[in-house]
Amino acid sequence: MGVVVSLDGERDKRPSLDELHALIADDLQAVNEEIVKRMQSPVALIPQLASHIVAAGGKRLRPMLTLASAQLCGYEGHRHVTLATCVEFIHTATLLHDDVVDESELRRGMQSANAIFGNKASVLVGDFLFSRSFELMVEDGSLKVLQILSRASSVIAEGEVLQLMTTNDTETGETQYLEVIKSKTAQLFAAACRIGAVVAERPNVEEDALEAFGMNLGIVFQLIDDVLDYRADQTKLGKTVGDDFREGKITLPVILAFRRGSEEERTFWRRCLEDLEQEDGDLERGIDLMNKHNALTDSVDRARHYGAIARDALGIFDDCPEKRAMINLIDFCIQRAH
Amino acid sequence: MGVVVSLDGERDKRPSLDELHALIADDLQAVNEEIVKRMQSPVALIPQLASHIVAAGGKRLRPMLTLASAQLCGYEGHRHVTLATCVEFIHTATLLHDDVVDESELRRGMQSANAIFGNKASVLVGDFLFSRSFELMVEDGSLKVLQILSRASSVIAEGEVLQLMTTNDTETGETQYLEVIKSKTAQLFAAACRIGAVVAERPNVEEDALEAFGMNLGIVFQLIDDVLDYRADQTKLGKTVGDDFREGKITLPVILAFRRGSEEERTFWRRCLEDLEQEDGDLERGIDLMNKHNALTDSVDRARHYGAIARDALGIFDDCPEKRAMINLIDFCIQRAH
Repeated sequence: MGVVVSLDGERDKRPSLDELHALIADDLQAVNEEIVKRMQSPVALIPQLASHIVAAGGKRLRPMLTLASAQLCGYEGHRHVTLATCVEFIHTATLLHDDVVDESELRRGMQSANAIFGNKASVLVGDFLFSRSFELMVEDGSLKVLQILSRASSVIAEGEVLQLMTTNDTETGETQYLEVIKSKTAQLFAAACRIGAVVAERPNVEEDALEAFGMNLGIVFQLIDDVLDYRADQTKLGKTVGDDFREGKITLPVILAFRRGSEEERTFWRRCLEDLEQEDGDLERGIDLMNKHNALTDSVDRARHYGAIARDALGIFDDCPEKRAMINLIDFCIQRAH
Repeated sequence: MGVVVSLDGERDKRPSLDELHALIADDLQAVNEEIVKRMQSPVALIPQLASHIVAAGGKRLRPMLTLASAQLCGYEGHRHVTLATCVEFIHTATLLHDDVVDESELRRGMQSANAIFGNKASVLVGDFLFSRSFELMVEDGSLKVLQILSRASSVIAEGEVLQLMTTNDTETGETQYLEVIKSKTAQLFAAACRIGAVVAERPNVEEDALEAFGMNLGIVFQLIDDVLDYRADQTKLGKTVGDDFREGKITLPVILAFRRGSEEERTFWRRCLEDLEQEDGDLERGIDLMNKHNALTDSVDRARHYGAIARDALGIFDDCPEKRAMINLIDFCIQRAH
């Protein structure tokens, strides 16, 4: 543990979460225990469904950010464990609600919790986790934290609705796309980081710096996620290729390929993503068009841009293992695309 | 306004909301304005969908309870308006999520917001209203209020999940049914009343009394609502008869008719409500069986019992127009069944 990877050395060593993991291992273990403990309810279906998704073994990226940020700020108490749990509960609630299948989409392949327990149970257990998250924040007792996370929750919901409105709309531009991913994804990364400085009672400038780091890291994360939807190594990442394509989600790779494409290509995109009339080979053709127009590599380049901002946001903090691990996290997110 | 209706006089005059309305008219107007103002968002679909349901002209019963309770406690500030708005937002979010249609039920008649905007938009706008509600509470700044309403929200979600688990299960008993309606409905009535005493900074005993009033009134309200599902005058109440029957919801009228019925009758109930195999005339037969076993009238009697508890809960308050109007509200809820 604690292997120092210099920034120049990153080309030699594939970035991983190991470094960060090692630094916050005990706290993360405490978060995992808190998650299991606080999702209990006398209503049996709630822990059943919740554990299905919570225990599905997500990366716990968001709670890790709270833990790492608090540690970077020199915090030594226990509040960050509770608040990291809140962050993960909000994320889990969002996942459950995000998976709700719309009437029109019912006949396509369905996601896990949803498919097993049904739409309604997923929605209601999401509501439970969301409410429980606020109960935990109230127990913690900081109005400042409550303010940050209630605001983040509203913005996430706005982002999700905005995404719904841009789905199947090939006219969506890069600015609007960025608005969507900032709201639906990056806002919670930002909040998760900011509350690390809040519990440590650090000055506002450090709160702002951590928020900026989280926001830009979140943008990187979602951009890369959207790239991976067109070129993941399925066996390696456990991610399915083509989900966004099948749903007609307008992500940056699509936007770039569409805008750079010929009229005939745009007709193809409109048929596939607006009308959702898809045939065998269409996904492959879409990927070919993306490659032809460098839409995937340029999306990764855009991600690098935000990664650079995230890195500089941490500039005000002195060099330390936590800072290095957090910067390494940016590279980890970007490297997922390779 | 302010017509004093003696408890003995209730047989002469049909209870209405007018008396309560008159007492809190200005505050309720302020709540309606706050609702419209605070459901705004740059994401156009949010106010569109929210206004569809918020403006659908519900009775605003829950925010009225907060206003009336605060006034009963002699409160003279403005916080109760904001908090009544929070209560209505939580209720609206619950309605939106409650209407989410499950896969298996897709082919039946669908509810409004849902039918127009789709499952997913309803869920997400519900999330937005819910988050916004917590934002408003944070602005208000009372951890005590946050504690009451975050707890209420968790319990509501638990109640909704419990209801989901009892749906189509004719083995459900009265105790479990009561647990469901306490959680999914009465808890928010109770919280709405309690925070009236909290803003007025009244002693704990008054908080408790108002909570008990709200809890029992909420039970009355839901019991009567469940009766009305089998005998509403559709033209008068704008309520559809038979929704619960078609969904296989196990409410008290069903529980009583099932438990008091013959084995042949139970087979009928199981076919209709467990297997959801329903034919023309089944609803009418169900209602006949309920009448045969006094299931509807006895459900109203059960409601009266809780109504009596609600009335006595207010015993610690001196006689005043607000108290009389709140007691009148109990009678109003019960009289809906006639």
